[in-house]
Amino acid sequence: MATGKGVTLYGMWASPAVRRVEWALKKKGINYEYIEEDLSNKSPALLQFNPITKQVPVFVHDGKPVIESLVIIEYIDEVWKNNPILPKDPYERARAQFWAAFSEVQCREAVRKVYFAEEEEAKEKAMEHLEEMIRAIDQELKGKKFFAGDSIGYLDMVFGWMAFWLDIAEEVASFKVVNSKKFPSFTSWIHSFLHDPLIKENLPPREKTLEFFRDFRKLHLPSSK
Amino acid sequence: MATGKGVTLYGMWASPAVRRVEWALKKKGINYEYIEEDLSNKSPALLQFNPITKQVPVFVHDGKPVIESLVIIEYIDEVWKNNPILPKDPYERARAQFWAAFSEVQCREAVRKVYFAEEEEAKEKAMEHLEEMIRAIDQELKGKKFFAGDSIGYLDMVFGWMAFWLDIAEEVASFKVVNSKKFPSFTSWIHSFLHDPLIKENLPPREKTLEFFRDFRKLHLPSSK
Repeated sequence: MATGKGVTLYGMWASPAVRRVEWALKKKGINYEYIEEDLSNKSPALLQFNPITKQVPVFVHDGKPVIESLVIIEYIDEVWKNNPILPKDPYERARAQFWAAFSEVQCREAVRKVYFAEEEEAKEKAMEHLEEMIRAIDQELKGKKFFAGDSIGYLDMVFGWMAFWLDIAEEVASFKVVNSKKFPSFTSWIHSFLHDPLIKENLPPREKTLEFFRDFRKLHLPSSK
Repeated sequence: MATGKGVTLYGMWASPAVRRVEWALKKKGINYEYIEEDLSNKSPALLQFNPITKQVPVFVHDGKPVIESLVIIEYIDEVWKNNPILPKDPYERARAQFWAAFSEVQCREAVRKVYFAEEEEAKEKAMEHLEEMIRAIDQELKGKKFFAGDSIGYLDMVFGWMAFWLDIAEEVASFKVVNSKKFPSFTSWIHSFLHDPLIKENLPPREKTLEFFRDFRKLHLPSSK
């Protein structure tokens, strides 16, 4: 175990961004204190450490907060050198960071659109767009078990939400884009990812997560505002 | 001048993300070839180098493409070591990357909402939200000329769009959030930023930019779809 003195993670059990940080901590073997937040009644500590976005995850190291899940993972990788997560070569690193931005901006926005679409035509258009994104990821994963090599690395952590939570989104919002005929490399990656011990033991329970996102969607549908 | 052999930037004159990369290249003193793209008729080279998002800027170094403006700036800073742009200390670096994510996700989304709001109530709510974002930036800039030190650095390049293009957005969409009484540090930073030679000589012409974004908004208003 690497030393993790003074390491605290403020999280929420259903959040993919929080789990992603836990995968990084587990990969490094860092001991940490986990504090579960009630997002409808945030703790004074969370608001003190992250007064600007007030979101989880917040990672506190020796009293200093680091915010935004991907920033936290890079920070962890810089400070604890064992079991590297990001590539060190500048070009490979830039390539990984491009895919990370693609996940966080384009893919998330594409899923959000399908998830909250209330008209059939808008939903189909959004699904087509999301399929384009998945096609690009499928191409990138061709012939590979994980994004880089044979164990869980940076981009597996980044895209992990599309392995577990996208399936939940499909069930909650009644759509289907992940298809093993259309996207054989992507679905095979999902399988490897979900069966890797590092991930399998650090995922929320499926039924409870389904229920959580069902409620979340109802609350945030455009027509309920 | 640092050597910039085999360095090409595919851009579009009105894009803040492209200008941001040019500021980084100028700060480093790197010679580069600039290729202006017609976004309504993208070149085969752009589509070949960036088949996934098809967006500018695309930075090509020795035949290899780097995509996403902030990823490009980090790459440039890693490869050309003179005149550092990002902090090297892991914690300071993580702090800067948090603010960068705040600019790219929260602030951009907040401006987008005001910019395309067609109902008065939605517009006012969006403006209030944007003011909260600016208040946070104003606090961060208190007592400082630039985000880190006395010359243009990473976060100045990141937030540069809020110095020049936000003012354009205010004029085009008839709103006003930037206010020197409410946000004295932010407005004083805008002044220093726009008068810095590195920036002043690498901005698009204001009138032409206004016209461009006026047309862009008309085309993309929800009611014109």
